[in-house]
Amino acid sequence: MNAIYPADEAHRSGEALNSGATIYALASRIFPLCRSLTGEGVRHTLDILAQYIELERHEVSTGTAVFDWTIPPEWTVEDAFIRHPSGSKVVDFVNSNLHLMSYSIPVQKILSKNELKAHVHTLPEQPNVVPYKTAYYTDTWGICMSHNDFEKLEDVDYEVVIKTSKRPGHLVYGEHVRKGRSEKEILLYTHICHPSLANDNCSGIALLTHLAATLKARATYYTYRFVFAPGTIGALTWLSRNYDRVGAISGGLVVTCVGDGGGPNYKRSRKGTAVIDRAVSCVRCGPDDTMPTIHEFTPYGYDERQFCSPGFNLPVGLLQRSSFGTFPEYHTSADNLDFIRPEHLGASFDMVCDIIEVLEGNWIPLNLSPLGEPRLGKYDLYPPLGGHKSNNTRTMAYLWILNFADGSHSLLDIAERSSLPFSEISAAAEILQDRGLVSSLGRCEI
Amino acid sequence: MNAIYPADEAHRSGEALNSGATIYALASRIFPLCRSLTGEGVRHTLDILAQYIELERHEVSTGTAVFDWTIPPEWTVEDAFIRHPSGSKVVDFVNSNLHLMSYSIPVQKILSKNELKAHVHTLPEQPNVVPYKTAYYTDTWGICMSHNDFEKLEDVDYEVVIKTSKRPGHLVYGEHVRKGRSEKEILLYTHICHPSLANDNCSGIALLTHLAATLKARATYYTYRFVFAPGTIGALTWLSRNYDRVGAISGGLVVTCVGDGGGPNYKRSRKGTAVIDRAVSCVRCGPDDTMPTIHEFTPYGYDERQFCSPGFNLPVGLLQRSSFGTFPEYHTSADNLDFIRPEHLGASFDMVCDIIEVLEGNWIPLNLSPLGEPRLGKYDLYPPLGGHKSNNTRTMAYLWILNFADGSHSLLDIAERSSLPFSEISAAAEILQDRGLVSSLGRCEI
Amino acid sequence: MNAIYPADEAHRSGEALNSGATIYALASRIFPLCRSLTGEGVRHTLDILAQYIELERHEVSTGTAVFDWTIPPEWTVEDAFIRHPSGSKVVDFVNSNLHLMSYSIPVQKILSKNELKAHVHTLPEQPNVVPYKTAYYTDTWGICMSHNDFEKLEDVDYEVVIKTSKRPGHLVYGEHVRKGRSEKEILLYTHICHPSLANDNCSGIALLTHLAATLKARATYYTYRFVFAPGTIGALTWLSRNYDRVGAISGGLVVTCVGDGGGPNYKRSRKGTAVIDRAVSCVRCGPDDTMPTIHEFTPYGYDERQFCSPGFNLPVGLLQRSSFGTFPEYHTSADNLDFIRPEHLGASFDMVCDIIEVLEGNWIPLNLSPLGEPRLGKYDLYPPLGGHKSNNTRTMAYLWILNFADGSHSLLDIAERSSLPFSEISAAAEILQDRGLVSSLGRCEI
Repeated sequence: MNAIYPADEAHRSGEALNSGATIYALASRIFPLCRSLTGEGVRHTLDILAQYIELERHEVSTGTAVFDWTIPPEWTVEDAFIRHPSGSKVVDFVNSNLHLMSYSIPVQKILSKNELKAHVHTLPEQPNVVPYKTAYYTDTWGICMSHNDFEKLEDVDYEVVIKTSKRPGHLVYGEHVRKGRSEKEILLYTHICHPSLANDNCSGIALLTHLAATLKARATYYTYRFVFAPGTIGALTWLSRNYDRVGAISGGLVVTCVGDGGGPNYKRSRKGTAVIDRAVSCVRCGPDDTMPTIHEFTPYGYDERQFCSPGFNLPVGLLQRSSFGTFPEYHTSADNLDFIRPEHLGASFDMVCDIIEVLEGNWIPLNLSPLGEPRLGKYDLYPPLGGHKSNNTRTMAYLWILNFADGSHSLLDIAERSSLPFSEISAAAEILQDRGLVSSLGRCEI
Repeated sequence: MNAIYPADEAHRSGEALNSGATIYALASRIFPLCRSLTGEGVRHTLDILAQYIELERHEVSTGTAVFDWTIPPEWTVEDAFIRHPSGSKVVDFVNSNLHLMSYSIPVQKILSKNELKAHVHTLPEQPNVVPYKTAYYTDTWGICMSHNDFEKLEDVDYEVVIKTSKRPGHLVYGEHVRKGRSEKEILLYTHICHPSLANDNCSGIALLTHLAATLKARATYYTYRFVFAPGTIGALTWLSRNYDRVGAISGGLVVTCVGDGGGPNYKRSRKGTAVIDRAVSCVRCGPDDTMPTIHEFTPYGYDERQFCSPGFNLPVGLLQRSSFGTFPEYHTSADNLDFIRPEHLGASFDMVCDIIEVLEGNWIPLNLSPLGEPRLGKYDLYPPLGGHKSNNTRTMAYLWILNFADGSHSLLDIAERSSLPFSEISAAAEILQDRGLVSSLGRCEI
Repeated sequence: MNAIYPADEAHRSGEALNSGATIYALASRIFPLCRSLTGEGVRHTLDILAQYIELERHEVSTGTAVFDWTIPPEWTVEDAFIRHPSGSKVVDFVNSNLHLMSYSIPVQKILSKNELKAHVHTLPEQPNVVPYKTAYYTDTWGICMSHNDFEKLEDVDYEVVIKTSKRPGHLVYGEHVRKGRSEKEILLYTHICHPSLANDNCSGIALLTHLAATLKARATYYTYRFVFAPGTIGALTWLSRNYDRVGAISGGLVVTCVGDGGGPNYKRSRKGTAVIDRAVSCVRCGPDDTMPTIHEFTPYGYDERQFCSPGFNLPVGLLQRSSFGTFPEYHTSADNLDFIRPEHLGASFDMVCDIIEVLEGNWIPLNLSPLGEPRLGKYDLYPPLGGHKSNNTRTMAYLWILNFADGSHSLLDIAERSSLPFSEISAAAEILQDRGLVSSLGRCEI
């Protein structure tokens, strides 16, 4: 088995903090960029990631047909603002790229406050934040601003200026592969099309980048494929270009919204009981060892929608802390660098590492002393004095493993059955193996 | 597919009210009649139903052996009362046919209040209502009255007069068949042996009559067999006379207590997962779209007991609003025409129509664009702007259908999986079919 | 079928009390003895049991290898106390055998209060009770006392005297077999190694002894094997000496902590759905007919751990009133003869008898009148008057049996499905058989 990180708890906690800080720093670097489905913001983001990991950049011409879709033109923003007759800009793209609806067409018009209203998006229930809006496949324009700011506007005529272009170019996505001994692949995927939204999804981009960097130094059994691509059209483009080999994907996670303190939440793949689905439920998150809340597959969400479409039906689930759409900061200017925290990013990173550990470290133990319990005290594995009300976790892990190590249960099976974390079962199993109490019947392949 | 009613919601709501008023009017007409297992009350009821629908009337001689049973003699009531020495009647059958226990034998006696007590049935916990009692297969007599009225009786001698007869004659039941293209039949059954009880079961009789009248104008795939028969002995008689062809019954509902505002409640057939059982759980009821509460099969209840006996084991469940025995008005004089309401009858009617729609309209969709999601916006099936927290029901219906339209899921399967009403899935599937996004692999036979 | 006790409720309740008193009296006799894994306390206990039932006593030499274990030497206590410089004994084994940690080695030392502390066990959260502690496989010594008593000790030097020996000898266990017509065996097992703890486990020892005495007078189908052995090493010794014939064990219970008023609780065998596991969930306990709480198998607990080890995997579960470790009296001096009550012992006894009744009395009924319901009134099995809101338990039992007596359901299946107690289903089925409504397709073998 390959430990992604040392088992030593103190060391690990230090590493987690370390990882959290590193991930937060990267998320902060990419936060200001104006990403969208295409364009310079995406390229710039991938440039930064390439400073951390080897990143193969793929460019696919706009206008290319991808299944039922067509790659849209590249969208470039030069400027965007609303100007008061006095000359002062009351909304300015320079202050936040959320102010401009993604894929807005160019405009230069004088409009009354009332005429403006049809193109201004606000959130009356959250009057202080700017919403995030997109219009990828519609020729329209929109300005997003806080409801309070819009309400405060005087009833005069405003100049709206949006200098954007949609021109032929490329859709760009990045790929990083960590070759393992097996050709079976684990897909780690995240979208890179959201502008200045920290949790959704600078957090996911930064976490997977740090994971790729970390994995580099370690041998793995499975091959890990990291894909950084724009939402929907990027996933579809990747699928269309890998059509003949997607069968190698033996499990995968779409990783988004991993920087806040909620959850964790996991939405199962369409298959529902794939190893990845089972693995996630056997890990814990954060200082309180919180169990993930497991949700059945639904066809709405992030790019697992594409991987789980019926023509592919890949074992790919969605991992998040707070679920998208459920926290008030979601898709607003409040999803900023204050909303995500290094300690949460670190805990999410540890959790993904633990999931990988389940996939990598799942073997089938055989109890070599199956007639009754072995006398654990003899191996220094049992408290010397008896009479206690209950037993500690490690002792319970020994007992669960010994009882179910009948050759038909893997460590993952035993973790599920015992409701103990896989890491606990795995650590205990190694000790039992060291003591000669169990042998390994080999890796449990996905 | 055959829509039982137009999909247009405004129209439908109008029709529901209309249906509710029509059903209520019919229930009101049959309410006063003194029905029992046999006799003029039953004949009179069927006479009225025959004014609305073609009704084949079956007469089976009393004394005929029916499985373990024998059809009891015809019971006729001429008069029944208790007379105070002063000459005033303190209880009179003329005021309510509930006052006489069904199948009471004739009596003419002078009895003290105390002697009377042994034959008077009251409900001390509901002292203002008259209970409903029967003694079909016992030679005894009883008077039912409110507890308060009995308590108020002076301690004097009373004359009890019950002029009834049990004579040879016939058990009568009515049958209406709407032929469909298939010989497979859906049984819609209700008992007609209860006297002046509005919910149990004037509501069921009237609803099914209106349904039969409504179905007449429409082509159906399945054949719908409506049976109006006295409880237990009527169901058994029908089963015995249809012994060789009950295998045609592919689903069915016993419909009772459908006029109050509770529930709805559905008790599964003994088979438990028959299509009819699954269909009911995918419809909704009333203005709040209430999901039915689904109960596991138990062998106590209405005539589904007979259809689900082990020698038949037909897929027939019990549909009600409030479950029998659970509402205080049950089997008392409080189950009157004030207790049932046109709007509840209308909602129940709509629900039964929706159940039929599931049976009739269940087909297997095939996603013609299964590699990723199709771009729904291209077909005008997706909101033009993005960034919202959640999706609307119709969009979710599209996504569920597309994701599970892999050729192994019917619309009913998808409705179950998505927890969306079948009507929503069905309407969305038709639109997807119109847009060329799914094709039909054909009807899903029961 | 063989009724373990007469069905008559009044008689039974009398018997239960009687049983309860008898069991309590026996528990009281064995309570004072200083039992441990080996030694005179165990022999003395078995001597007493042999006054009630034929008991085969097995002696196995200390030092014998038993699977991964070795039988420890015999432990004998001569004296144990702590003496204040004034000469008064502040702790004395003579007052309670819990004061001495089981298997303590001999000591004679002068120790300060502080030096004493390392060897004194108290329960600070329950400062008035003496804890129970063991050190079977460690060469150490310990004194157990109440926290308050220890706190009150003056800060002076104390003389500790422990006169014990560990010498070659035997492990002793008792066995009683009630031969039935079948060679298949039901194992009724309890541990006899706990000193003065009333619920854990004088209650179990006394209950099983009384059960063996009671069963003697009755013919049974299965063979009942009672084993009274020290915990863990005793169970392992029994397993090792019966290695070639444990396959005859078709079900079993470890019976402990059956004298308090909690629960009942049942932990399933490792198999999980063995007949014994299903049987326990169909019995009730005590005057309120409490359903047992059923727990999934876990590898921690009593000697079911050994029977359910993967090399044996016998269908043996754990039956208790309050679950071990969950009640404050557990493994303390508060688990005394006040804590267990005759009425609880009687109810537990009845429950075990009822479990045996399920095993003995499970047959497959066939409805001889499967077309519709038979007219139960004809057989005097239905209330003569109708119109009631609900039905009584016995009538429901008839209906459940008739409905599921299709040849593929046993009485146990029907009890499970109906959630009625097996005793109710069994009694109703016998009456239906008497009336000719069902026939028996024979015993349902375990």
